[in-house]
Amino acid sequence: MTGAMRLLLLRSVSTVRTLFCQRPPINPQRQRGLSGLAMRLVQFQRHGDAGNIRVGVELGEGLGVVDLKAFDPSMPSTMRALLELGDEGLQCAQRALSSGQCVLERSDVQLLSPVLAPEKVVCVGMNYRDHCLEQNAPIPKEPIIFSKFPSAITGPYDDILLPSESQEVDWEVELAFVIGRRGKHIKEEDALSYVAGFTVANDVSARDWQMKRNGKQWLLGKTFDSFCPLGPALVTTDAVKDPHNLGVRCLVNGDTVQSSNTDQMIFKTEALVAWVSKFVTLTPGDVFLTGTPPGVGVFRKPPVFLKKGDVVECQIDRIGSIVNKVV
Amino acid sequence: MTGAMRLLLLRSVSTVRTLFCQRPPINPQRQRGLSGLAMRLVQFQRHGDAGNIRVGVELGEGLGVVDLKAFDPSMPSTMRALLELGDEGLQCAQRALSSGQCVLERSDVQLLSPVLAPEKVVCVGMNYRDHCLEQNAPIPKEPIIFSKFPSAITGPYDDILLPSESQEVDWEVELAFVIGRRGKHIKEEDALSYVAGFTVANDVSARDWQMKRNGKQWLLGKTFDSFCPLGPALVTTDAVKDPHNLGVRCLVNGDTVQSSNTDQMIFKTEALVAWVSKFVTLTPGDVFLTGTPPGVGVFRKPPVFLKKGDVVECQIDRIGSIVNKVV
Repeated sequence: MTGAMRLLLLRSVSTVRTLFCQRPPINPQRQRGLSGLAMRLVQFQRHGDAGNIRVGVELGEGLGVVDLKAFDPSMPSTMRALLELGDEGLQCAQRALSSGQCVLERSDVQLLSPVLAPEKVVCVGMNYRDHCLEQNAPIPKEPIIFSKFPSAITGPYDDILLPSESQEVDWEVELAFVIGRRGKHIKEEDALSYVAGFTVANDVSARDWQMKRNGKQWLLGKTFDSFCPLGPALVTTDAVKDPHNLGVRCLVNGDTVQSSNTDQMIFKTEALVAWVSKFVTLTPGDVFLTGTPPGVGVFRKPPVFLKKGDVVECQIDRIGSIVNKVV
Repeated sequence: MTGAMRLLLLRSVSTVRTLFCQRPPINPQRQRGLSGLAMRLVQFQRHGDAGNIRVGVELGEGLGVVDLKAFDPSMPSTMRALLELGDEGLQCAQRALSSGQCVLERSDVQLLSPVLAPEKVVCVGMNYRDHCLEQNAPIPKEPIIFSKFPSAITGPYDDILLPSESQEVDWEVELAFVIGRRGKHIKEEDALSYVAGFTVANDVSARDWQMKRNGKQWLLGKTFDSFCPLGPALVTTDAVKDPHNLGVRCLVNGDTVQSSNTDQMIFKTEALVAWVSKFVTLTPGDVFLTGTPPGVGVFRKPPVFLKKGDVVECQIDRIGSIVNKVV
């Protein structure tokens, strides 16, 4: 495609978008934030149409899904591209939800991780007071930041692949959030306006690799393929009244192994956005995992680790639940 | 764009590609490797046309650049997309180079990092024998793997931004390589066929954050914006006779501060590809930084760190040289 052809295509896409998605008048009070809309955004593919990723909006937790691209063909196919559109994309999603059109039955779709291929998966260690007490560790004075590679991300109901390289694979339920706007040196008071929404993560961890090998750099133990189940929905920030007062639980084979509340978080969403953006430019789609409460397998006496056939469920009130089988 | 429209567009692009890039007969001995072609691939933008990223082929180190998309409009605009095409893309680049057409003067182009937005930047610590001796550290028995976020990548002649958050910013010249084929559990004997080529990196490091803060997880100290200058060219694997016998040097303000040879590497390219692919699926565009030789600032007596106005040059024989000013 030549430059001129690309320009022509961009212009025609822009015309189509305007036809389908009339911009509402801009509310000046909302200009600094995201759209102020309460939605449960998902990524999905239809059964029998694997690889054809779409963005959708849940009618409600576990209910039918509006196919955004069916409602408006000018809308992008991935969450990251939708977030890059800013308010325009979210407002179109809201109109799609309100329209009552283009709804797919839940049984017709497979939910994927709400974000795929983010630039960053930022993780926070030792961020629950009760988790620090569990391991007799001091409360950190600054956030402890590590990462997973984006290749670790898997869907909300996909399998966790037990690697033959580890004998100590453990669970960690975590509140996750996703960045919606590009920014650097973000102030705490502005931070929530850079957050598109919240979701549920399992920070699956190979303790042998995390704690004893790789020069004690945590990365390898945290980043095996499938070690970041995520989902089911990206619940927009305005749909979550207080993200720091939510029950958070992990169940293994139906037994509750972690049960706490996000009010135990030492560094909350705003502080984490401000902290990490001192170092790096944040970009739409970046995923943050905010740390885990007590009850992980490695600190049990004796320690307990995941084995083939186990089913791990991570639940956060008002956000949702992910269920992953270990294979 | 509807699914049908997308299909139509893909088909027409594919037709155009066939017209411009006739596939040569496949050589069965080459099927498992990349194209077997010796080239210096770059990413560039023309002066006055910032943001319009193109892939190019250098006529020779520091010489004019063939604009691949001008030669064949069906070719992609980014190195990552070119690598995803596999042999087809590299063979087209070779034809572009041989054609003598579409050559831009060096003075007309600004070279960018040869890869932007990879899924992973994989880094290796303590991987030079002489660097271990320098700090009285034992020779590692396994590679030590850490990472930078892709947002740290900057161009071969771009500025290194000195962050106010660190007082101890240091240099590290490193041989880098880029993955050309998707793979998991890759055997050492097959590993080089997964490597598209080699380039030069500076693993800029804030020692205070790497060594004393963030719970001693290295990530934050390694990943400030601009802390991964990369380039100037991706020199294809077949253009480098022995990547593990190359002189490697770092100069600060013209004074040689690091001078060693890649024969000091403890874990070589093949071992690193095999090792990391035990944990994660590698994908075209993934960048590996293979560790640094002795002579870094932090182990000097007294320690020396970068300050505004310093110019850092990282050189590797046969691969190239990157020059970055500290601002």
